[in-house]
Amino acid sequence: MEYAEPKRIVLLGTGKVATHLALALQGLDGYRIIQLYGRRASSIKRILDKLSEPIPYTSSIEDIQTNADYYIFALSDTALASVFAQMPQTTGIWVHTAGSVALSTIAEHHLTSGVLYPLQTFSLEKSVCWRDIPIYIEATEEVGRRALEQLAQALSAQVSYATTLQREALHLGAVMACNFSNHLIAQAQSWLSANGLEPEALMPLLRETFAKLETMSAYEAQTGPAVRGDRTTIERHEALLKHSPKLLALYRFLSESIVQEHSDSKEIDNIE
Amino acid sequence: MEYAEPKRIVLLGTGKVATHLALALQGLDGYRIIQLYGRRASSIKRILDKLSEPIPYTSSIEDIQTNADYYIFALSDTALASVFAQMPQTTGIWVHTAGSVALSTIAEHHLTSGVLYPLQTFSLEKSVCWRDIPIYIEATEEVGRRALEQLAQALSAQVSYATTLQREALHLGAVMACNFSNHLIAQAQSWLSANGLEPEALMPLLRETFAKLETMSAYEAQTGPAVRGDRTTIERHEALLKHSPKLLALYRFLSESIVQEHSDSKEIDNIE
Repeated sequence: MEYAEPKRIVLLGTGKVATHLALALQGLDGYRIIQLYGRRASSIKRILDKLSEPIPYTSSIEDIQTNADYYIFALSDTALASVFAQMPQTTGIWVHTAGSVALSTIAEHHLTSGVLYPLQTFSLEKSVCWRDIPIYIEATEEVGRRALEQLAQALSAQVSYATTLQREALHLGAVMACNFSNHLIAQAQSWLSANGLEPEALMPLLRETFAKLETMSAYEAQTGPAVRGDRTTIERHEALLKHSPKLLALYRFLSESIVQEHSDSKEIDNIE
Repeated sequence: MEYAEPKRIVLLGTGKVATHLALALQGLDGYRIIQLYGRRASSIKRILDKLSEPIPYTSSIEDIQTNADYYIFALSDTALASVFAQMPQTTGIWVHTAGSVALSTIAEHHLTSGVLYPLQTFSLEKSVCWRDIPIYIEATEEVGRRALEQLAQALSAQVSYATTLQREALHLGAVMACNFSNHLIAQAQSWLSANGLEPEALMPLLRETFAKLETMSAYEAQTGPAVRGDRTTIERHEALLKHSPKLLALYRFLSESIVQEHSDSKEIDNIE
């Protein structure tokens, strides 16, 4: 049994990642958030309201505690640069959580630095299971690497190393797979509403669309008029969209992309 | 208790919808498939192999039984027209299963006609639960309407009426929500593979992306650099895609669409 003092964490940020990190870190044996930093009192209040125990907080960078073990910067890419520049000298390892910010960006400001990138989408309204979130880490030096690995493994069962370039590629893939497909579903939902139909009608279809991805690749799972080369249906859909120029452009662009991707490989099947 | 003779069904088609309908109809009390029609022997064999009991079948339209209660045309939109034109005179109701084919297209050939449109995506490899599939029906006349409603309600707990125009709108929404989002996930998976990363890394993210849609609209669930107005990340991603012109075009088009959709409404948050 170890009776070591808990590791001391300063958490910077009050957005979605910061909120979910704070919730996870509060429940973690061996770690303690000693301070929360946020620019605005209203954002600090929003995050504190969600936590089971109060945390000391500040909205002044100059009041940040300088003797912690971890400084976790869960801030937007744009906020990161200005916060790094204003930070006091501290002990410990500095870690950012951004998919598309290089390790070198943080290492310029503090020698022992790293990245802890959770490949997940976070909403304020919905809890997540950190054990299942793939976390990608990167660090400047051996001592920081071990400290970062310990923290990441305390949070998740799926910790891997990724270089800055690999992490950026992951982030880009996540944007395409998650943000873009969500946008298309949003467009479909508002199209149904505009036509007096219930957006909920799509739910069984969406559940099945995603259940399929547990057993086959999305390429193999592709269905629909474009992959069948069914020009009649595509033209009929384009006619339905003639008063919705934005949707029409989206429909044409995506259909063409599917046709191109699959034109060389598919036998035309009887039906979707 | 009713001891009526089972209703006699002729099923035309050997594709995905026909296969899943055949599987469902074989398990349905009060209904019996008396004949299966398919153009090619290989396709007929493929569907028969999946069924628990053999069914009489033919690949000649002239041999189709003319005294059934239901003729279900689960054929591609293009095959429908030519099969309708070659069909003999029959008893019963003719029903097609296509999202984007008008009721009038089938009614031209047979007075008592209808549409039974299951709003679902079907794969040969994966079974589906028909009770949960929303089915939209439409019929030319009262007597056919009742027969069709009975069949649809025997298959599914979610049966609604939809006009041809409503059904086309539903189909278009389904293509956008399901086929297009699947295509983007396929692009993301192949992008990860091309960069030496595991496509499976996206699964926890995808699960969460779709779990969110059970509790909020896709519009509310939108995350990512585009909805944050995070131009730095968007430009970094575009730079990563400079040798992938097709993906770059897709990335720009979708990001711009999200920016436009959300530009009027969002406070910029700290982080995704």
